[in-house]
Amino acid sequence: MAREARYARVRRIVGLTRRLTAAPGRLYSLAELAEETGAARSTVSEDVALIDEVLREAGLGAVETVTGAAGGVRWLDTVSRERARELTQALIVELSDPGRLIPGGFLYMTDVIFSPFWAERIGALFATRFLPLGPDMVLTMETKGIPLALATARAMGLPLAVARRESRVTEGPSMSVNVVTSSGRIGAMSLPRRAIPTGSRVLIVDDFMKGGSTLRGLEDLCRELGARAVGCAALCETLAPQQQRPLDYLALLRLEAVDDASRIVGLSPAESFIRYLEEARSDA
Amino acid sequence: MAREARYARVRRIVGLTRRLTAAPGRLYSLAELAEETGAARSTVSEDVALIDEVLREAGLGAVETVTGAAGGVRWLDTVSRERARELTQALIVELSDPGRLIPGGFLYMTDVIFSPFWAERIGALFATRFLPLGPDMVLTMETKGIPLALATARAMGLPLAVARRESRVTEGPSMSVNVVTSSGRIGAMSLPRRAIPTGSRVLIVDDFMKGGSTLRGLEDLCRELGARAVGCAALCETLAPQQQRPLDYLALLRLEAVDDASRIVGLSPAESFIRYLEEARSDA
Repeated sequence: MAREARYARVRRIVGLTRRLTAAPGRLYSLAELAEETGAARSTVSEDVALIDEVLREAGLGAVETVTGAAGGVRWLDTVSRERARELTQALIVELSDPGRLIPGGFLYMTDVIFSPFWAERIGALFATRFLPLGPDMVLTMETKGIPLALATARAMGLPLAVARRESRVTEGPSMSVNVVTSSGRIGAMSLPRRAIPTGSRVLIVDDFMKGGSTLRGLEDLCRELGARAVGCAALCETLAPQQQRPLDYLALLRLEAVDDASRIVGLSPAESFIRYLEEARSDA
Repeated sequence: MAREARYARVRRIVGLTRRLTAAPGRLYSLAELAEETGAARSTVSEDVALIDEVLREAGLGAVETVTGAAGGVRWLDTVSRERARELTQALIVELSDPGRLIPGGFLYMTDVIFSPFWAERIGALFATRFLPLGPDMVLTMETKGIPLALATARAMGLPLAVARRESRVTEGPSMSVNVVTSSGRIGAMSLPRRAIPTGSRVLIVDDFMKGGSTLRGLEDLCRELGARAVGCAALCETLAPQQQRPLDYLALLRLEAVDDASRIVGLSPAESFIRYLEEARSDA
């Protein structure tokens, strides 16, 4: 290979790596990538195979090939079981800091929940876990669910819908349901009609799971809009949801107890997360 | 160069490109990157220079070198003036669809505001525009401001704080201010004490600017917590804020009128955005 050609290849591969990894889940046809880089399709195909190999080995995601007429390649920020375990461990260390204790037995988690750094990593994990279900929407409840849900939707290349406590005149026809929260209050949850297309397969993402009233409300909203909740991902649970129907569920952390007096935070990996780590899957 | 060495270089560059671009704003020391890739610092330095050159030329961001003892390199998703213009134009096309008209003279924008696709692109533009101000926090008001603010914070490598309508017992001591909204209602805005460290330089990000009462509330919250708002970015304005103090301000779009009867959406680039395009800056 001439020096010039080698140089051209390195440059092409930098551009391809950046393009693919900037848009997780987005399908690029080889023709499209060939045109953008000015190289032959066979050349681009070789480059993409190399990128895939390097990223997989380094645990930095993977390039998936989709066959068929509408096929192409797409990058997925796949998180290995090992990286998933490390991430959850790092979250436990971060959140178990006694400086996070709030009088009344609460744990300050707001900074982590709104952090782009943590949201991106957790979102990639949720995407890896739930991509096999083939969802075509992500749904959450305002407010604290939004960063995680947005990061998950980004990692899957999907749109996001956000249920709110009130319907807005600016959003047109909307569906509302009522839920009884774990503290016994009745609350409304509302979603614009056009936020979820009929027939959608919906992945629900939330920050906290406390008995599952929000989850039930979001499932109701999906059903009333002719869509179906296929899975639910949460950062932290105090109580895993009791489901009548089978719903694929994952929480990373379980918050057992926060004790003001002893300054102890009882935070551990959730049961559903341990099961996930133990499954021997091919994407590990 | 031997074939093996050439191959090793391509592989190293794929990994470096992915690592750098996955964490915008994060400073990597050359020693750190050398250790991760198993190459010499001088080699990594050459690789990074090449990555920077390719990305800049393709308008896919830039690698910045920070000198000094705590120095290193960091990738920034820099948006050129040309890409900024194209993005705003694409937003106008997307949002001017008459199918978005809602009875009462409203425009349905919720899907765009919650879209990871648009949020990421707009966030990168805001980051490019406001990075020179050296903010160390991004702040928004729940709910619709969150996706844009999160994407902006991600692109700058900064943490995010979210003001809420009520303070929460789970978040410890909090600061509240009252604002009079453009519709004449009095509303509260609240922020946990620990969400914004004293002395912070804060970039405010919101979806919509209508006279600026939310902006004033957020500025008040900053001041009461011993921090300072240094800039404000919004997706869309109906009225640019009237500022007593100088605050660096950018909105992308101006919504003039939404007319039910004629099915016309009056959407154009905001004045502050046109000024931004016209400034001849070195980062263009």
